[in-house]
Amino acid sequence: MPVVGKPVARKDALDKLRGLARYIDDYNFSDILHIVTVRSPHAYGRLKSIDKSAAERMPGVVGVITADQVPGKNAVPLVLEDEPFLAQDYVRFHGEPVALVVAESYEEAQAAAALVTMDIEPLKPLLSIRDAIAESAPKIYGSDNCFSRYNVEKGNAEEAMKSAKHVFEQEYETPYQEHAYLETNGVIAVPGIEGTMTVYGTMQCPFYVHDAVAQALGRERNQVRIVQTTTGGGFGGKEDFPSVVAGQAAIVAQLFNRPAKLIYKREEDIIASSKRHPGLIKMKIGTDDNGKITAALIDYYVDGGAYSTLTPIVLWRGTVHALGPYECDHVHIRSWGVATNKVPCGAYRGFGSPQVIFAGESMIDEIAVALNIDPIEIRRINGYKVGSSTATSQIIDQSCGLMETIEKASAKADWKGKWQKPEQRAGILRKGVGVSTVYYGVGLGAGGKHLDRAGTSITIMKDGSVHCAIGNVEMGQGARTVLAQIAADALGAPYDLVNVVETDTNLVPDSGPTVASRTTFMSGNSLMLAAEQLRPRLLQAAAELLGAPGTDAVELIDGKAFLKADPNGKQFGFRELAAKLYAIRLMPSAFGWFIAPDSSYDKDTGQGNAYFVYSYCTNIAEVEVDMETGEFRVTRITSAHDMGKAINPQQVEGQIEGGTLQGMGYATMEEIRHDANGRMLNNAFATYILPTTEDTPELDPIIVEHAYDRGPYGAKGFGEVPLMGIAPAISNAIYNATGIRIRKLPIKPEKILGLDE
Amino acid sequence: MPVVGKPVARKDALDKLRGLARYIDDYNFSDILHIVTVRSPHAYGRLKSIDKSAAERMPGVVGVITADQVPGKNAVPLVLEDEPFLAQDYVRFHGEPVALVVAESYEEAQAAAALVTMDIEPLKPLLSIRDAIAESAPKIYGSDNCFSRYNVEKGNAEEAMKSAKHVFEQEYETPYQEHAYLETNGVIAVPGIEGTMTVYGTMQCPFYVHDAVAQALGRERNQVRIVQTTTGGGFGGKEDFPSVVAGQAAIVAQLFNRPAKLIYKREEDIIASSKRHPGLIKMKIGTDDNGKITAALIDYYVDGGAYSTLTPIVLWRGTVHALGPYECDHVHIRSWGVATNKVPCGAYRGFGSPQVIFAGESMIDEIAVALNIDPIEIRRINGYKVGSSTATSQIIDQSCGLMETIEKASAKADWKGKWQKPEQRAGILRKGVGVSTVYYGVGLGAGGKHLDRAGTSITIMKDGSVHCAIGNVEMGQGARTVLAQIAADALGAPYDLVNVVETDTNLVPDSGPTVASRTTFMSGNSLMLAAEQLRPRLLQAAAELLGAPGTDAVELIDGKAFLKADPNGKQFGFRELAAKLYAIRLMPSAFGWFIAPDSSYDKDTGQGNAYFVYSYCTNIAEVEVDMETGEFRVTRITSAHDMGKAINPQQVEGQIEGGTLQGMGYATMEEIRHDANGRMLNNAFATYILPTTEDTPELDPIIVEHAYDRGPYGAKGFGEVPLMGIAPAISNAIYNATGIRIRKLPIKPEKILGLDE
Repeated sequence: MPVVGKPVARKDALDKLRGLARYIDDYNFSDILHIVTVRSPHAYGRLKSIDKSAAERMPGVVGVITADQVPGKNAVPLVLEDEPFLAQDYVRFHGEPVALVVAESYEEAQAAAALVTMDIEPLKPLLSIRDAIAESAPKIYGSDNCFSRYNVEKGNAEEAMKSAKHVFEQEYETPYQEHAYLETNGVIAVPGIEGTMTVYGTMQCPFYVHDAVAQALGRERNQVRIVQTTTGGGFGGKEDFPSVVAGQAAIVAQLFNRPAKLIYKREEDIIASSKRHPGLIKMKIGTDDNGKITAALIDYYVDGGAYSTLTPIVLWRGTVHALGPYECDHVHIRSWGVATNKVPCGAYRGFGSPQVIFAGESMIDEIAVALNIDPIEIRRINGYKVGSSTATSQIIDQSCGLMETIEKASAKADWKGKWQKPEQRAGILRKGVGVSTVYYGVGLGAGGKHLDRAGTSITIMKDGSVHCAIGNVEMGQGARTVLAQIAADALGAPYDLVNVVETDTNLVPDSGPTVASRTTFMSGNSLMLAAEQLRPRLLQAAAELLGAPGTDAVELIDGKAFLKADPNGKQFGFRELAAKLYAIRLMPSAFGWFIAPDSSYDKDTGQGNAYFVYSYCTNIAEVEVDMETGEFRVTRITSAHDMGKAINPQQVEGQIEGGTLQGMGYATMEEIRHDANGRMLNNAFATYILPTTEDTPELDPIIVEHAYDRGPYGAKGFGEVPLMGIAPAISNAIYNATGIRIRKLPIKPEKILGLDE
Repeated sequence: MPVVGKPVARKDALDKLRGLARYIDDYNFSDILHIVTVRSPHAYGRLKSIDKSAAERMPGVVGVITADQVPGKNAVPLVLEDEPFLAQDYVRFHGEPVALVVAESYEEAQAAAALVTMDIEPLKPLLSIRDAIAESAPKIYGSDNCFSRYNVEKGNAEEAMKSAKHVFEQEYETPYQEHAYLETNGVIAVPGIEGTMTVYGTMQCPFYVHDAVAQALGRERNQVRIVQTTTGGGFGGKEDFPSVVAGQAAIVAQLFNRPAKLIYKREEDIIASSKRHPGLIKMKIGTDDNGKITAALIDYYVDGGAYSTLTPIVLWRGTVHALGPYECDHVHIRSWGVATNKVPCGAYRGFGSPQVIFAGESMIDEIAVALNIDPIEIRRINGYKVGSSTATSQIIDQSCGLMETIEKASAKADWKGKWQKPEQRAGILRKGVGVSTVYYGVGLGAGGKHLDRAGTSITIMKDGSVHCAIGNVEMGQGARTVLAQIAADALGAPYDLVNVVETDTNLVPDSGPTVASRTTFMSGNSLMLAAEQLRPRLLQAAAELLGAPGTDAVELIDGKAFLKADPNGKQFGFRELAAKLYAIRLMPSAFGWFIAPDSSYDKDTGQGNAYFVYSYCTNIAEVEVDMETGEFRVTRITSAHDMGKAINPQQVEGQIEGGTLQGMGYATMEEIRHDANGRMLNNAFATYILPTTEDTPELDPIIVEHAYDRGPYGAKGFGEVPLMGIAPAISNAIYNATGIRIRKLPIKPEKILGLDE
């Protein structure tokens, strides 16, 4: 493997560093229209009428578009299709798009948007999980305000709990998290000939957008093309929401038959785009005297907001993972995706897991404290090894590096040297150390099985340069680089000649979403299948050039072809091979198509092989707390990750560092606040506080490689994992420093001082 | 075959009729630069210096680009690479591009272009074939002013001529022909991220343009993308020339890192773009008493102009076809592609054949007259049947409809009723009837064998709509429609759900040029191979829906799937099949790759199976001549064509009608004139005269189908053929009316009156 496993330079690095990368707002088209969204000022109300007349008279305005003008179906096609492209009859959250003001310039559209008036009869909004699940609550969705619910039952947890030696019961709460990607949502829709529409934009899931635009316009899929532009971050936030803006822009472009641009200001992006679901987790855990878990009862609620978007599948992942990577024969997990009158929640790195991981990893720390066991030791006792059975009764049959991550992280962080009980700590400035262990099902799992396939295509050009198209996207995570490494080695091509282009729905078949840490695994495997078709043709070209008796006699590696019998003899370069391939007219292109390994799930019992493989990690956080002010600093985080194989170790470390910091923001500062009427109060970076380089602790990433036999070169997928267990590791460290247990994120000085819940 | 063979509506008709089609000049990009070309005022000269300074000071001008600034190689990559993107050291024809003035607006660029001055030392130009091949001629290319030469020798023609009963010898000359496509040449080059360049434009051969742009910029092929825009006609004229303008625009776009637009005015397009080669054909034919050809000596010269462009391959086709579709055991054909100081000549519908067809079909008419044989009869005697041997000793083994075209055309035109000898005609207005027979090797033949492959891709979208990408282009000839018909029937999809998109080099592998009447055959076969991969998957989906025991039990036709055993029972539509295909995650995409059937050619003897199959036609022209003024009207043309299978009969008839009219222009009015210094005199539609609807005769197209077993549904390819034999049919009819033989095209009243040669 000449490049797989090497820290080769990112394909997109230089242009991004030089400011040459082109994001959607850098694009323009002649005769373009600009769109500004008019939003609901209320969290909930009956939309009686909209007065566009004043806006329509404004200079530069070409029209104001409302729900009645949607040419196709006014419903964003995700899971339940309850969300409209534009509000119809009701507004259901503060900031919901109601009308689109279309003008020759952005400024003109903005000026006119202020003049659109809405006659809305306000209704009392539901603003929390507890309010929405109260029996007396008015019903805003279905008969129980629940978008979805799951049940996982293994053994008999209720009975087992009765006979447990020790029983621990707690509630935990987790907040919203805003993705805070550098680039806000934005698209340009360009009408083409014969009723076609091309939408360019920043996005994670071009094929979701493809569905959405076709549905919004009432067009065939082969009339719609989605081209992903260089995407400045996603983190899950560009899984569902681009479907909304792309649908809206396409509606405008079709109605006026002109290109239409819709780019969000940061304030709009925060107020309207999906967030991480707030969570409420009730845990009841039974153990024996040694801390071995014997029974687990978990109730998990997420606040889905006004529309279901991805709630059903976010909730499924969180439900399946709710117990954490711990063996237990008797498990009962129940979960609910709850409707409220707030911004819809969707995907965010971790996808329903960080909530339950915070709860579970806090709980196991509490158990360790109560039973006087080292927190590392209790994880050794309960944690997954090969042969373990998950909460869904799946037997972990391979590629389980959890124990190695525990050992490596604790050794590197000097856990033994640093850990002592809170009672033993003294002084104003107190240090603490906390641990979390995490497992993560790679890919969509049984819940999204029908979408878990990926297409790619490879074309060897006649000069030997290689063009790869993928269906999962580069959004800053490094996919183009890692996939170019895989394609290069699979073909035997030099890395420098291989390029992976940004996703275009005309280039590759529907490959599902770019989520669930699935890109390296799915698109990587798909590229290998494409390369598998091309390699024999390259070998045939090589055999002809080398005068070999057959392709078996030829080796091709790193762009050099030679006789196996004479490795130091005559060589032909990749460019010569390509020229020969063309001369003998062998097909230089191939599609790859990879279907995920099987998974299963019984929807009644929640039992089955939920995911085809899991990744694992252990985080050790170190903190320093000022006991007088409650102020604290996270000083160091050591994270050991088993991702099967690090295709590019530098990028793996980058993912760990970025994810860790995002997890630290989630743990210690990020929260969205609403007023009593459900209006979002802090939709700006001045008021929504994120960690900066000033807050960055020392980061110590460790790579652990337990190869997965179905992975490309053994790789699994782990992009989300670095964030997932950071909050409980920090919280546990805070406890370890102070003896104060925080059960509701974010951890803030006032909570440490007991001045806030 | 629910749609193949049916005159279904063209895919592009409605948008074109409504004015919604978007040609390259309809495109714009923000921040775009406009280019105006500065051209050589001389036919030949030494380019000593260029003074840009005045132009560069003009408002809006951002730069003036000359040869020294070409980032890559200053040579257009076609056959011999002698043509520069911008003139260097020498100018070699009047109108040759010397500099590119780049400005913020077209008008500013145009104003500045007038101020660029060139110091050119004029040299004496070579302006005709005869001048250039004279031994005393100064050498402007190689040692003999020939770009290429061929030799075809079958038997011993020189010896056979000596013993021929009758010997006929004549010289024929043919003129330039301007393509006069509705849309002039034009491109927009748009620089992208990471050194990439996308060029949009009107063109026939995106993969030639791909090569040219990569070479002009010094970039890898995977950094260059060519997107063909709706193309308003090509006729061969957009085979080579778009490489020039695309290379130039890309150079500008790269140098300034901004989109750059280069669109030709009609006058520029006529002065600089390639034309049909003027031809000089010396024929010496021996026959027996019955008109059976026993020996043929043919010398064929074409005027290639200042650069070779496609001359070597144009000449090859003409050489191979020089004798016409006539058996003869002793043939010697020699040919020369001659360099002169005039506009380079390239491809034009017929590609080197109409010149020799005019000569050969005139000659056979002269022989018939001399030997007192009916011109139809002499063709029956000599013409190809299955089993005939061509001039390259190829045995015609199948799909030879020549005789049927003769019989059908002559019957339909009432040849017997209308033909009488000129001597029998009297009066001022005289009618005449003339015939020509033509054969045409489909595809690139042995001369372009290495390029004779075509790739396509098909993706079935999840709603059942079908996206087909092709490597040969739609340029108005109807490719998108015919290929959609083939794909629809091959898949079993409804025609309405199938769309074929315009060519994009990122969508399909290099498929060679869109020339040589190869698109239906090559891309059609390629689509069938793609469909062949997809059809079993559709059948599997159908089998699952129908509960069939296996795919063998299922039929899928015209978008309906049913059990073979129960054709009137349960049916599933194509949309349902597609949904099932996605549900079971079968790969919905496939590449097709078709390699042309074999051909061969010995370059010394010119012997071999020059083409894999031939198409045939017979034209019968009827004219009415005013013997006092020399004015004449072509009143009717009956053309019977064997194209194997008419995939879309309406389009076949359209091709016959359009080609016939183009052939009539070639025969009767079109010519390019130069002054004594080689300056083109009539580069405008006011002075270059084309036939109009006023001139259109009654047209009577006849379809003859001798299926080719390797063709898609039996189709061969024939797009060029309708033009090819029109000139001699008309000329022979003029002779038949008047007794006056025209041996130099175009036929004009003054020639009939004997006032001009």
